[in-house]
Amino acid sequence: MSKLRFQITMTLDGYIAGPNQSIEHGLGEGAEHLHDWALELKTFREMHGDAGGGETGTNDDVLREAFENVGATIMGRNMFGPVHGPWAGDSWRAWWGDNPPFHTPVFVPTHSPREPLVMQGGTTFAFVTDGIESALNQARKAAGDKDVALGGGAKAAQQYLAAGLIDEMEIHLVPLLLGGGERLFDNLGDSDIKLEPVRVIETPDVTHLKYRLVKKGSSGTDSQRAESPAKA
Amino acid sequence: MSKLRFQITMTLDGYIAGPNQSIEHGLGEGAEHLHDWALELKTFREMHGDAGGGETGTNDDVLREAFENVGATIMGRNMFGPVHGPWAGDSWRAWWGDNPPFHTPVFVPTHSPREPLVMQGGTTFAFVTDGIESALNQARKAAGDKDVALGGGAKAAQQYLAAGLIDEMEIHLVPLLLGGGERLFDNLGDSDIKLEPVRVIETPDVTHLKYRLVKKGSSGTDSQRAESPAKA
Repeated sequence: MSKLRFQITMTLDGYIAGPNQSIEHGLGEGAEHLHDWALELKTFREMHGDAGGGETGTNDDVLREAFENVGATIMGRNMFGPVHGPWAGDSWRAWWGDNPPFHTPVFVPTHSPREPLVMQGGTTFAFVTDGIESALNQARKAAGDKDVALGGGAKAAQQYLAAGLIDEMEIHLVPLLLGGGERLFDNLGDSDIKLEPVRVIETPDVTHLKYRLVKKGSSGTDSQRAESPAKA
Repeated sequence: MSKLRFQITMTLDGYIAGPNQSIEHGLGEGAEHLHDWALELKTFREMHGDAGGGETGTNDDVLREAFENVGATIMGRNMFGPVHGPWAGDSWRAWWGDNPPFHTPVFVPTHSPREPLVMQGGTTFAFVTDGIESALNQARKAAGDKDVALGGGAKAAQQYLAAGLIDEMEIHLVPLLLGGGERLFDNLGDSDIKLEPVRVIETPDVTHLKYRLVKKGSSGTDSQRAESPAKA
């Protein structure tokens, strides 16, 4: 079955966004250098529709691999946009303009129903109101033989982590101390996730840490399996 | 001038100890596997007085280097022991028996005065009541041409980090999620520390991340220098 893969940039002190996220500061305040390592890479530029150019090399190889074989994407409501509660119309169309960098169906778990949004370049946003496992099931169906990418933000990642639904995780660890904001590893409860290191790739700007995730006892009882049909 | 060097084992979710530290659980609950990567190493065993044996290799090289050229040690009151407030006698003599693994003078910043403790193997504990900079000055004097090692725990590390007094930091990152306990990178305020990556060393059990630390603007005004004579 296709894997749920998650990759994200994190500071050494564990933050994936700064405090006070807003339309002006989509990544929160003080986090403007979080993704410096990626912005000029060839893969990043291509995904964002910039024609030609961009840096190649180790970081570009890692980023390219992270988006290879991805047939669908999941993102949390907070990554889709800073609009909370009911949608108040259809005017918010995410952060990325008419041609978002995902180029796959994107599933957004949310409590607020909304009609799907069809963007350019193969990206569609579908809003899933019956939970994160349903969003994963729909994403897997859309992905076919390919994998599903979980895009963040923090809350969505924490929910999928805590539920033991992520199969593979790559942390792009950057040498910054943000001192505040949204931590990736919070609110995990006693979810008991086991990390199996896959590889470490070091560059001067960022260290890429890749893990396989195993929910302890996940091969366990029938009741566990019945609760987690997506993992059967 | 001699450097203040700090090295510590941290989980991927940022913890250096579990919750509810006590005499029974010196590292807190659930943290018993935090240092598994080090326990059987030749250097670790030698420091703890175990004769002969022990594993050699990359992790042992890293650990040996971490304690090379160290002439004095600083540790927080909470690392020295779980005794808080006034000392209530001299019966607590730290965790490590008669021959602790430090083999240098050790300076413990604390609010509660106490006579120095002379242990076997070159370790002495001195209790410093006039602040962390004073402890560092005394440690530097004791270290002579050698460096000073900061041993932890979380609160002491945070205080020295926030004050911009640490010159070099090595994080031994282990693939564990602890979900609770004491985080290394908390309570840093707006201390504005810049990390300069030195190197990454990967092994199957642990990733060693070494950084030089620079306090932004530390080359600044005379008033700053006057406030931090230890950094002049």
